[in-house]
Amino acid sequence: MPSSSQRSASALHKRARRIKLLIMDVDGVLTDGRVWLQSWPDGSAMEIKGFHSQDGVRLKLARFAGLRTGLITGRESAAVTRRARECEIEFVLQGRAEKVPAYEEFLRRTGFEENEVAYVGDDLPDIPVMRRVGLAVAVANAAPEVKKAAHFVTTRAGGDGAVSQVVELLLKAQGRWADAAPRARA
Amino acid sequence: MPSSSQRSASALHKRARRIKLLIMDVDGVLTDGRVWLQSWPDGSAMEIKGFHSQDGVRLKLARFAGLRTGLITGRESAAVTRRARECEIEFVLQGRAEKVPAYEEFLRRTGFEENEVAYVGDDLPDIPVMRRVGLAVAVANAAPEVKKAAHFVTTRAGGDGAVSQVVELLLKAQGRWADAAPRARA
Amino acid sequence: MPSSSQRSASALHKRARRIKLLIMDVDGVLTDGRVWLQSWPDGSAMEIKGFHSQDGVRLKLARFAGLRTGLITGRESAAVTRRARECEIEFVLQGRAEKVPAYEEFLRRTGFEENEVAYVGDDLPDIPVMRRVGLAVAVANAAPEVKKAAHFVTTRAGGDGAVSQVVELLLKAQGRWADAAPRARA
Amino acid sequence: MPSSSQRSASALHKRARRIKLLIMDVDGVLTDGRVWLQSWPDGSAMEIKGFHSQDGVRLKLARFAGLRTGLITGRESAAVTRRARECEIEFVLQGRAEKVPAYEEFLRRTGFEENEVAYVGDDLPDIPVMRRVGLAVAVANAAPEVKKAAHFVTTRAGGDGAVSQVVELLLKAQGRWADAAPRARA
Repeated sequence: MPSSSQRSASALHKRARRIKLLIMDVDGVLTDGRVWLQSWPDGSAMEIKGFHSQDGVRLKLARFAGLRTGLITGRESAAVTRRARECEIEFVLQGRAEKVPAYEEFLRRTGFEENEVAYVGDDLPDIPVMRRVGLAVAVANAAPEVKKAAHFVTTRAGGDGAVSQVVELLLKAQGRWADAAPRARA
Repeated sequence: MPSSSQRSASALHKRARRIKLLIMDVDGVLTDGRVWLQSWPDGSAMEIKGFHSQDGVRLKLARFAGLRTGLITGRESAAVTRRARECEIEFVLQGRAEKVPAYEEFLRRTGFEENEVAYVGDDLPDIPVMRRVGLAVAVANAAPEVKKAAHFVTTRAGGDGAVSQVVELLLKAQGRWADAAPRARA
Repeated sequence: MPSSSQRSASALHKRARRIKLLIMDVDGVLTDGRVWLQSWPDGSAMEIKGFHSQDGVRLKLARFAGLRTGLITGRESAAVTRRARECEIEFVLQGRAEKVPAYEEFLRRTGFEENEVAYVGDDLPDIPVMRRVGLAVAVANAAPEVKKAAHFVTTRAGGDGAVSQVVELLLKAQGRWADAAPRARA
Repeated sequence: MPSSSQRSASALHKRARRIKLLIMDVDGVLTDGRVWLQSWPDGSAMEIKGFHSQDGVRLKLARFAGLRTGLITGRESAAVTRRARECEIEFVLQGRAEKVPAYEEFLRRTGFEENEVAYVGDDLPDIPVMRRVGLAVAVANAAPEVKKAAHFVTTRAGGDGAVSQVVELLLKAQGRWADAAPRARA
């Protein structure tokens, strides 16, 4: 008889195998949650964001392996625009304080079922989307309420490889990791 | 008979229930205390500050729940001005090396009693205000003298969710958290 | 009879003694792997990189002691150009998504044998070069696949002195550390 | 009979009581040793430095209490110039790859004896000065060779309050802390 943790690993594997679209929050997921603002001489402040190089390598592998990827964030910055391009992220919606409408826009544009979507979040505004997707992931640094709403909690923190861990989980469950990994590009 | 820690939790709860205005120091409280300076080609240096996205989400919830919020800081930067606006912080006094006069200005502008004010600090210049307010909070990274002057010491550090912890403490003591949390916006 | 860890220390020493050229990846090796992007008013984003001052001191010592040094990175930034100059790094190839051709370019330019080259990496794209050099080093924060491909794994992380540790290993194995260290310059 | 650690505490106290001038290295002492470079559109890179707000508060207290303060650094940046002014640091020598001549310049300008000077360092280039001063301090993150050359090793790391710890040590040994602390300004 399988143990409870084996049963749960197998349920996770089943969820992961179906995923065709990986949607991520930005602050706290692709970054560690710090919002960096640089003062400019004209009295404005421009945003700085810290991403992880290993996440970038694996997001490109995800695309290579046929997974589609997207971002939804409440903030708006040139830093995210550039990073999304570098990581070959297909769908980018910035400036969305509420995430459900953006999520539904992704569903319409891809035609995917909700159980074909994974979402990675860290804080309260992510919960409404996490309750709907096939695979809800909370990062190690997520708020307790978010971890409760997740099917899987990463051991690595946002901005420190949490997204790498999710991509590897998906590609391994789908039997594509061994083929994709040697194609990694810097 | 209640234990000493139950008595102290109950005393803290009583203090938190009365709070109408939450005043925060910036460096070491909304940030981790690092003062980042970027060199510019003209020989000047502009300030960068690192805030926490989860603090921003909860400071907006505090306003939604009817709490008033303010900042007092000895430094002055466009980064703080922008972050205060993003977090819907109502009262912002920058460039105040001495904090008591700024604190008294907040009292005059709100008409609140001192026991209706909470203050969150990390270092020696915060102590004179902490000795007067109804709820004095020290962050995990505060100087030892500041922790001694506090009614409550957070387990999270400044810039790493200390302010989130204080907002949740206040809204829970006031019975407003369960209603506010689902309204969280990114 | 020497223990297995003594045998392995002696094998490492033998590899290190032959090295004439030290090649390093940048992100995750000379930095902690964070890719920092600063938003600019024109909608572009410029890269910020965080190097370690002690690595700089030791890379200059390596040059003083006669070792040649080089960088291969998939990204491209003025930050790396300046840092390479500060650290007196001789060979700098930026914008190279694939590292083997850049590595072979270094071999041609120096005329060195592959067993005279050390390479320090942290992620999947580094593995093809690590399989060819005389001394393959993975940093403490490297991906598991990279650690498996390494002759030596540093205890310090990239951007936190990993390169310092490699330089000291090489100069000590070559009997040049005691002479070089007092010549350290800030 | 006093224990060895009591004897050593008493020897440290005796050294600290005589100090009139506190000289600090910058990278790794007033910062955590990270050298941050921001790429600019013209192909240059400008330096960013991360100081600690609590160090600033205590360096101003040191001046208030009559201690003189100075910096010696191998690098050169507008960030250090601004931070030195904010912390009321009197003597600032940047761009000094060798530290002994800068140290001797401070001796000439103040007329102090070598046993009236404390120096705080983290890396190999600091050792020649540390061997001459009355009180040589290594930060928690210093290289092993530097810790060996020190009379005192801080428990806090550079950029995380190491300098605060040194200022408190000096002012307490000189009986000036209790009087100075309440005068702290943000």
